[in-house]
Amino acid sequence: MEPVYTDLVEGRINFNDFKNKIKDCKAVIINSPSNPTGRVESMETLKQIEKLTSDLGTYVLSDEVYKDLIYVRENYLIKGPHVITINSFSKTYALCGLRVGYLWSLDQELVNKIIEMKTATSMNTSILSQAMAYETTKTPRSFINKQVKIWKQRRDLIYEGLSSMNLDLWKPEGAFYVLPKIKNSKDFVWNMFKKYKVITYPGEWFGANDRARFSYALDINKIEEGLKRVRKYLEREGSSHLG
Amino acid sequence: MEPVYTDLVEGRINFNDFKNKIKDCKAVIINSPSNPTGRVESMETLKQIEKLTSDLGTYVLSDEVYKDLIYVRENYLIKGPHVITINSFSKTYALCGLRVGYLWSLDQELVNKIIEMKTATSMNTSILSQAMAYETTKTPRSFINKQVKIWKQRRDLIYEGLSSMNLDLWKPEGAFYVLPKIKNSKDFVWNMFKKYKVITYPGEWFGANDRARFSYALDINKIEEGLKRVRKYLEREGSSHLG
Repeated sequence: MEPVYTDLVEGRINFNDFKNKIKDCKAVIINSPSNPTGRVESMETLKQIEKLTSDLGTYVLSDEVYKDLIYVRENYLIKGPHVITINSFSKTYALCGLRVGYLWSLDQELVNKIIEMKTATSMNTSILSQAMAYETTKTPRSFINKQVKIWKQRRDLIYEGLSSMNLDLWKPEGAFYVLPKIKNSKDFVWNMFKKYKVITYPGEWFGANDRARFSYALDINKIEEGLKRVRKYLEREGSSHLG
Repeated sequence: MEPVYTDLVEGRINFNDFKNKIKDCKAVIINSPSNPTGRVESMETLKQIEKLTSDLGTYVLSDEVYKDLIYVRENYLIKGPHVITINSFSKTYALCGLRVGYLWSLDQELVNKIIEMKTATSMNTSILSQAMAYETTKTPRSFINKQVKIWKQRRDLIYEGLSSMNLDLWKPEGAFYVLPKIKNSKDFVWNMFKKYKVITYPGEWFGANDRARFSYALDINKIEEGLKRVRKYLEREGSSHLG
């Protein structure tokens, strides 16, 4: 299979480009809220994608792992017999180390094939992980709402911190990443890691060569410390990274 | 890929048949001690296989998950740059629910490809499972020896129990399965499950239509209870299953 990429506008899907690129595609992956952009796609775009893919008979892999981590805007979850919905216990319940996710679809035949493939590649999933994931299903919605408030504080902190260093970025609407413009982003990532012990990811890994991804899946004090180090680096030796 | 099967003689590899069948094979899987036969291959056969596959440049997947559960005979672990050794924490340390295994090979390029495939299919492994598996590496050999004695008691119990019902089987040398001859084994498996709540596997799943697999990975009292039920079934209605 050969991947085809749709061009984003400020981290969001441009439906016209999407429509042009989808022609020979068997399936599309939609990830809203998105890693690494932190964007939530507009309701209108998501509904247009739902209709177009349904008309064309193109499968949609709807990766909704960040669906509970939204700070602004409404979300829309794509539905239909051509949709495979993917979710995880990693984000909402911070169980990423336990490696439990799931998918569902109205297409039972497809689900059976996926079960067969899963069984033949990694067989079943740790029973401890499954038991812990099951416990999360008893979590009241109020817990998630409380967590979202914490995520929003972290988002505001990192957004304001990086903005004040004159980095060009948009404010995340969901998920827990910021994706500022960084010139020579591979050097930036390498230096931040080697000299300042801060881990970021090169935008290149996500098809955005002129950016770097910062995660804010950390406690406030860790984010503050990280921001201090980024500021120090940019002040001392990082002028080549600013646009 | 198309699987090719070598014919076993009383659950053991016949080297002449193996030699004839290997010609167009890219890789062979050796599982000694074996699920479902409970056999340990002879040292001579294993050394012959090691040499032949080395000469032909055929990969050996040496599945050694039962290597610590041997009651009689010596074992030999196939070595060489063409060998991929597979092991698990499931059997020796009874951690099967945690789903942690590993493989190693002298062929670093192949290992890199396997890591890439693993990453793209099931990514990494539960950190809880990994931590628990790591703890087992501190287990003294004396613990394993003690466990093997318990396994041997279970083996003797099930072997003697099934033999006394006039079932035709060999005494397992390793692993924790017996594979008696059972006529109409699919009916047997189904009836034992539905009417007597005893789970066995049809030999058909392992290429042995005239047999059924019993596991003795259970405490002694459970095995005793299982044997009682098998006896009851065979006495009441199971005459069609005896050879």
